[in-house]
Amino acid sequence: MASSVHYSVRVQPYFANWMCGNEPQALRKLMGIVGRRPNILSFALGWPDPALFPRAAISAALVSAIDENPLALQLGPPLPDLRREIAALMRRRGVACDESQVFLTAGAQQALDLLARLLVDPGASVVVEEVTYPGMHMALRPLAPTYCYVPTDERDGMDVDALQALLSRTRPRFIYVMSDGHNPLGVSLAPSKRRRLVELARAHQVPIIEDDPYGFFQYGSGDPLAPMRALDDEWVYYVGSFSKIVAPGLRVGWIVAPEHLIPKLSIVKDLSDIDGCTLVQHGLARFLAAGALAPHVDTLRREYRERRDAMLGALERHMPEGTRWSTPQSGMFVWAQLPSTIDTTILLEHAIERGVAFLPGPPFAPGSRIAASAMRLCFASCPRDRIEDGVATIGALATQALDRPTPTARMVGA
Amino acid sequence: MASSVHYSVRVQPYFANWMCGNEPQALRKLMGIVGRRPNILSFALGWPDPALFPRAAISAALVSAIDENPLALQLGPPLPDLRREIAALMRRRGVACDESQVFLTAGAQQALDLLARLLVDPGASVVVEEVTYPGMHMALRPLAPTYCYVPTDERDGMDVDALQALLSRTRPRFIYVMSDGHNPLGVSLAPSKRRRLVELARAHQVPIIEDDPYGFFQYGSGDPLAPMRALDDEWVYYVGSFSKIVAPGLRVGWIVAPEHLIPKLSIVKDLSDIDGCTLVQHGLARFLAAGALAPHVDTLRREYRERRDAMLGALERHMPEGTRWSTPQSGMFVWAQLPSTIDTTILLEHAIERGVAFLPGPPFAPGSRIAASAMRLCFASCPRDRIEDGVATIGALATQALDRPTPTARMVGA
Repeated sequence: MASSVHYSVRVQPYFANWMCGNEPQALRKLMGIVGRRPNILSFALGWPDPALFPRAAISAALVSAIDENPLALQLGPPLPDLRREIAALMRRRGVACDESQVFLTAGAQQALDLLARLLVDPGASVVVEEVTYPGMHMALRPLAPTYCYVPTDERDGMDVDALQALLSRTRPRFIYVMSDGHNPLGVSLAPSKRRRLVELARAHQVPIIEDDPYGFFQYGSGDPLAPMRALDDEWVYYVGSFSKIVAPGLRVGWIVAPEHLIPKLSIVKDLSDIDGCTLVQHGLARFLAAGALAPHVDTLRREYRERRDAMLGALERHMPEGTRWSTPQSGMFVWAQLPSTIDTTILLEHAIERGVAFLPGPPFAPGSRIAASAMRLCFASCPRDRIEDGVATIGALATQALDRPTPTARMVGA
Repeated sequence: MASSVHYSVRVQPYFANWMCGNEPQALRKLMGIVGRRPNILSFALGWPDPALFPRAAISAALVSAIDENPLALQLGPPLPDLRREIAALMRRRGVACDESQVFLTAGAQQALDLLARLLVDPGASVVVEEVTYPGMHMALRPLAPTYCYVPTDERDGMDVDALQALLSRTRPRFIYVMSDGHNPLGVSLAPSKRRRLVELARAHQVPIIEDDPYGFFQYGSGDPLAPMRALDDEWVYYVGSFSKIVAPGLRVGWIVAPEHLIPKLSIVKDLSDIDGCTLVQHGLARFLAAGALAPHVDTLRREYRERRDAMLGALERHMPEGTRWSTPQSGMFVWAQLPSTIDTTILLEHAIERGVAFLPGPPFAPGSRIAASAMRLCFASCPRDRIEDGVATIGALATQALDRPTPTARMVGA
């Protein structure tokens, strides 16, 4: 009967090599799961709380932009008003720059993609931390670069000695760093390390991509640290975003780069999507000019600090012995390292059944096993009064996993 | 004294190879010039007339989206409401598809970029027309493909015999075609050629990228032609856009693709910018659901047809003997071929001095000299009553150039 079997083989087009075997991203899958379960208590995604969006102010800014200027719906040169407002915003981060150094992007992810395409030939080497933001890996995937991994100290950031040793033997295309509120580690880079990193970048003529979506949220009592771009305007390419401080659905980010880089970035932007959403750019420029951002960021910072404290307290009360975690001074994330017999990818499945989500460590550390027992918890996305219950659920599941080593746990190194 | 001369050599980072020697795009330069001269009469850019933007309806749709749903400012799965509305819109173009085949992009340019990255390995071959939309070349530039050029008949579109001969000896990654209102030629592909193109794509298993920003503007008296996607749902990847039918500043376009392609496109979209502007997507879905698009497109079609007729009449009255041009049945462009001693790039400089702009042919035909005496005139961007004067200015300059062969004219083949 074998001859009557019909094989339904789909004839497909050729795909580019880098796509072969590529499965939908773990993050996208999780977005799908969380999106389909609106009542899930999610510490998973690094998204701000929609309840805190400044909706009325955004709505008013957009209406006035459309009413007063039909060109708000047209394409046009990158909006000077918005670039000026961003330069002013950078001064609040301790960075001196002007609008000619500000390049507008469709969120920080596009900034990473444009910089990757501008700087990296296929196979060229780049420096990233062993544990880092997966969006950088995503942007680099089509270029199949050679990764040079540098470890990170969970107390004070990237291991600069390891970086120095690495730079003595190779010249990578860039060094990717998050100075404040590291995603996922929650760590902020020590001031002395910021200085040394900038010196290394200059000495070896390797640009730093400084990704700073979280730096406006500083929870310490002292003066906030300035990003590395404040120390160097030639070798530090700063990436900023309105996603966390206003709303991610606007898709507006920016790069602060040396002026000579701007025309080159324009070429990559043109071929990618010509222009950002000019309407939203016009609206955002009005929102900023009206002074609406500073009080909003202050509100967010206060609220997120309280949520952070609620999460740190809950972790103390509910996580099993042998768990350690960071105390973030900035950003939205706590990184928790569970006992090494716990596989957080399996733990997540059980947690979702109980209506709670987090992100397991592995997507943040591709090609490494160091994150298999870690989890990233976003404390910013959900109301303070639900944090305790959510962490208690995770803690109970983790404790169970320790008591019953299978199937939630696995032998590390086996 | 030579020893005291200081050479100020900027130390730059490595750039990716494809960027080396890349100058800012001709189109971007012209956008700058036109942008700085707000009173210029421009037939240059393929932008709709801001005076015709449906501002009140867009504003109302955005306000209700923000008021009623805070998630309009959040990231999220590609908006089902908008994809359903687009599927309904496609039915008006004669295409049967459903939302599971609709993929949202940041304008048509991003659709071209995503498809190029998905389908093309560096150096692989692609089919484009000798005279075509420069945005396709832009999207392909980082991949440095091998171009297989196919000529186009200005009366009925791509030379399908030439394509067939080409496909007998090579398997390109895709064939790029505009079926209606070709940019810049203004031609619409004959029905018999649509059928043959689809048959060739199937037989040779090569996808067609069918770029259709202009197909909703049909000026003929008969039934409008359906795009090739109506003939094949497996090998035709249709690219649509709201840029011309609503407003380009919204940056919303779409791809209608076989469902199996959608997860792959999502991977490329994720790494490019994660998501489109969700706020605008929510607003646009409401604008469409309110039925605001159909009457708006009818208004545009009537108005653009009158502008087209005004331009065709003015060309007849003012262009020097030996000039020939297309009579577009769709789209926004007339392609005029001037006597071969006229260099339209030089002519443009003189025209700008007189306050009129058009686009010379060469950016549409890289690597070919066939367009050196041609120009693209967009009839849709400026009020009807100014078209006569603008064409008269260009006609007078062209006539002068014929009378005085330098410096406006040059010897062809010299």
